[in-house]
Amino acid sequence: MKATIITIGDEILIGQIVDTNSAFIAKSLDSIGVEINEMISISDSKEHILNTFAQLQNTVDLVVITGGLGPTKDDITKKTFCDYFQDELVVDQKVLAHVTQLIEGFYKRTITQINKDQALVPSKCTVLHNQVGTAPGMWVKKENTVFISLPGVPYEMKYLVENEIIPKVVREYQRPYIIHKTILTYGQGESLVAERIETWENNLPPFIKLAYLPSAGSVRLRLSARGTDKQVLEKELEQNIKSLDAIIHDIIVGFDQEETLEVVVGKLLTQHGKTLSTAESCTGGKIAQVLTAAAGASSYFKGSVVSYATAAKIDVLGISEALIAEHSVVSAAVAADMALSIRKMMKTDYAIATTGNAGPSKGETTADVGTVFIALATPNSVLVEEFNFGQPREKVIDRAVIKSLEMLQKEILKNVV
Amino acid sequence: MKATIITIGDEILIGQIVDTNSAFIAKSLDSIGVEINEMISISDSKEHILNTFAQLQNTVDLVVITGGLGPTKDDITKKTFCDYFQDELVVDQKVLAHVTQLIEGFYKRTITQINKDQALVPSKCTVLHNQVGTAPGMWVKKENTVFISLPGVPYEMKYLVENEIIPKVVREYQRPYIIHKTILTYGQGESLVAERIETWENNLPPFIKLAYLPSAGSVRLRLSARGTDKQVLEKELEQNIKSLDAIIHDIIVGFDQEETLEVVVGKLLTQHGKTLSTAESCTGGKIAQVLTAAAGASSYFKGSVVSYATAAKIDVLGISEALIAEHSVVSAAVAADMALSIRKMMKTDYAIATTGNAGPSKGETTADVGTVFIALATPNSVLVEEFNFGQPREKVIDRAVIKSLEMLQKEILKNVV
Repeated sequence: MKATIITIGDEILIGQIVDTNSAFIAKSLDSIGVEINEMISISDSKEHILNTFAQLQNTVDLVVITGGLGPTKDDITKKTFCDYFQDELVVDQKVLAHVTQLIEGFYKRTITQINKDQALVPSKCTVLHNQVGTAPGMWVKKENTVFISLPGVPYEMKYLVENEIIPKVVREYQRPYIIHKTILTYGQGESLVAERIETWENNLPPFIKLAYLPSAGSVRLRLSARGTDKQVLEKELEQNIKSLDAIIHDIIVGFDQEETLEVVVGKLLTQHGKTLSTAESCTGGKIAQVLTAAAGASSYFKGSVVSYATAAKIDVLGISEALIAEHSVVSAAVAADMALSIRKMMKTDYAIATTGNAGPSKGETTADVGTVFIALATPNSVLVEEFNFGQPREKVIDRAVIKSLEMLQKEILKNVV
Repeated sequence: MKATIITIGDEILIGQIVDTNSAFIAKSLDSIGVEINEMISISDSKEHILNTFAQLQNTVDLVVITGGLGPTKDDITKKTFCDYFQDELVVDQKVLAHVTQLIEGFYKRTITQINKDQALVPSKCTVLHNQVGTAPGMWVKKENTVFISLPGVPYEMKYLVENEIIPKVVREYQRPYIIHKTILTYGQGESLVAERIETWENNLPPFIKLAYLPSAGSVRLRLSARGTDKQVLEKELEQNIKSLDAIIHDIIVGFDQEETLEVVVGKLLTQHGKTLSTAESCTGGKIAQVLTAAAGASSYFKGSVVSYATAAKIDVLGISEALIAEHSVVSAAVAADMALSIRKMMKTDYAIATTGNAGPSKGETTADVGTVFIALATPNSVLVEEFNFGQPREKVIDRAVIKSLEMLQKEILKNVV
C-alpha cells in the first residue's frame, strides 16, 4: 500500500514556513505499514494541483493533502476538489452546527458568511469531523486512489490523522508489516561505524534496509524490515541486531526505537525517581525547554536558572565575583560552581550547567567562539567537560544541549547497571 | 527562472526527521528572484532519483538536491549523478586535501578509505567547496537544466547555498524581481480580516499576490509582487499597502517583512536600551530559548528562572507559600509576584512571568488544562492577563510564548510613541 503526501501553499515554496505536517503524516502512516512514496509541496495554483492529482491517479492508493482549506481567497483546495471530481459544494449540517458552536459559543463572536462557508464540502466526499477547528477533513475515492484533504494548522491536522484517518485506513485496507529498530551509537563518526560493520551490512537479508542517521556525536542506525509475516521480521531483526551488538558493543548506548534523547533521559529519571535542575548560560534555557516540551516533565524536572548575563550568575546563582575574575565566566570552575549552586537551590539529585560562547562574536567573554563547558553535578560528584562545537550558533547550542543530556544519561546508567 | 528542490532520504519519507533544508534553500533562491516550482522528497532509491531527474530535465532551470552525499552505503546521490550524466567518479585533489586536513588536523583521527572517497566527484561537475564539512557540493549542467547536489547536514548545506550557489546564480542568470511585503495584524481572525479587505483584495493588480498566514492571535498578510521593473513593483506595493492601512489601521501592528516576533522584540529592546528577564513555569524556558537563539540577545536579555516545580517558585523566586495557598499556583497573584520577583533579582527594566497548565492532565494544579496567566512587570506597573489556549500542550506553550512577547511589544511601543 503506497501513499503520497502533498502540501499546498505558496508560503512553503518561498521558504516562509517549514513543512512539519508531512513528517507527522508520514510517521503515522508508516506505523501502520503504509509506504510513503513521495512528499510534494506545490503552490496555491489550481492548475498545479489538478496536474499533480492527475499524475498520482491510480499510481498510489492514498494521496494525503494538507493546506488550502482556510476560509480566505488564497485557499483553493476545496474548489479544486470539485473540479477534479466533477462535483459541487454542498452544506454539511453537522459541520455547520460545529462551526457555529465554535464561533458563537467558544469565541463569542457573531458568525460571518466566510465562517459559514467552512461547512461547504464536495457532495461526494466523506467528511472527517474536525473537533478542534472549523475546517473539516475530506475523503474522496476516485477509481483506485483515495484523496484525503486536511487543514494545514498542525494540531488540527494531527487530530484528524489520529482520530479519523489512521482508524479508517486500518479498518478498510490490508497492509504489510513495517518494523523499524533503531540502534543508537555514540562516540564514533559515520564513516568509522560504516567500516566496522561493512561485512555485517552486506549480509543483511534483502527485506531489511539499513540507514545511518548521524547527529552531534552519535550515529543512529535504523533497520527497517518489511513483509507479510510479522514473526519472521521480528526474528530476523533480533538476530541481526544481536550480531551487530557483538561487533560494535563498545559504542552502542541504546536501542530505543524512535525516542529523542530528551524523552529517553526523562524516562530514565522518572523510572529511578531522580530529579533534575539546570543552570544555563550559552544554551539559553533550551535544555529546560526540550525537557518540558514533553508531558510528564514535572515528575523529575524542578526548574532552571538561565543566567545569561554575568550579573545573573553572581546575583541569582551566587557565583563569586572572585571566581569569575580568576577563571573567566566561560571556564570549568564557573560551570562546576553553577551546577553545584543550582542543584542546591532547586534541591535536586542531578544538575546540569552550561557556560560558553555560542558566537558569532566574542561578546562579554574572552573564550573562543564555539567553546562550551558543561558541568554535571550528582549527589557526590561534579564532572566538567570542555568542548568546542565550532560554528554556527545554532549548532553550538544544539550540540551543547545534546551533549549535556548524554552526560546525564551515562551518569544515570553507570549508577544503575 | 524556475527551480525544483529535491530532498533524498528514507528518513524523511518515514517521518523520522523533518526536512528544514528545503525551506532554507527556497527562501534563499526566492530572495534573488528564482521561483520555486515544487519541493519533492524521495527515497534513497537510484531508480526513483533517476526518474525524478528525467521528469524535471528541461522543465526547470535549476534542480537543487540535498541529502545522499554522506560516506555510507545508503548515500547514493553521487553514483546516481554518474549514471544520469553518463559520467565517472574522479578524485578531486583540492577536496582530498581539505578532507585530510579536517580528519587528521582537526579531528586528530587517522583518515580511512571511506573518508578519502568523499573526494570522489563526477568528472563533469563543477565542485562547490564545502569549507565546513567533508562532502563537497556539485554543479552539473545538462541541456537547459543545472543539477546541484548538496550535503544534507543543515549547516553544511547553508554554507554552500550562501557562499557558492547564490553568488554563482546571480553571476550567471538574468532573473525578474520578486518583492515580498508582510503586514502583521493582530486581534482579529483570518475570516474577519478577509471580509474587511475583500474589495481591496479584488482590486489588486494581477502581478501582486496576497496570502494569509494565520498564527496564534495574529494574521500575517503577505504581498508578493513579481516583474521586470523594480520601481513599478515598489510603487504599486507602496500604494496598495497605504490603501490597506486605511482600511485596517486598527489591527496593523507592524510591517516587518520576514522577522519573527522574538527578533522584533529583541530589536525594540536593544534600540531603546531596555533589558528583560523571565520567570517561566508552564513555558518551561521557551521564552528565554527563542530570545537567545538569535545572536545579540546578551545586550538585552539578562536571564530567566524556570520555576517548573512549585518548590522552585518558593525557594528560588521567593514567592510566599501563603500566597500560593490562598490563590493556587496558577493564578494572577502568583504570576504578578513571579514577574516582580524576577525583575528585582535580575535587575531588568521589564520582566515576563508565566504560570499555567499546559496539559494534557491537571498535574500539580487545580487549574483547567490550557489556562495560562501571563504577567508583565515594568518599571512602574505589573499587568496580568488570563488566557485559555485549549489543547494540545505544544499549542498552549507556543501561544503563551507569543502572547508574552506581544504584551511586551505593546508595552514598549506604548511608551515610545
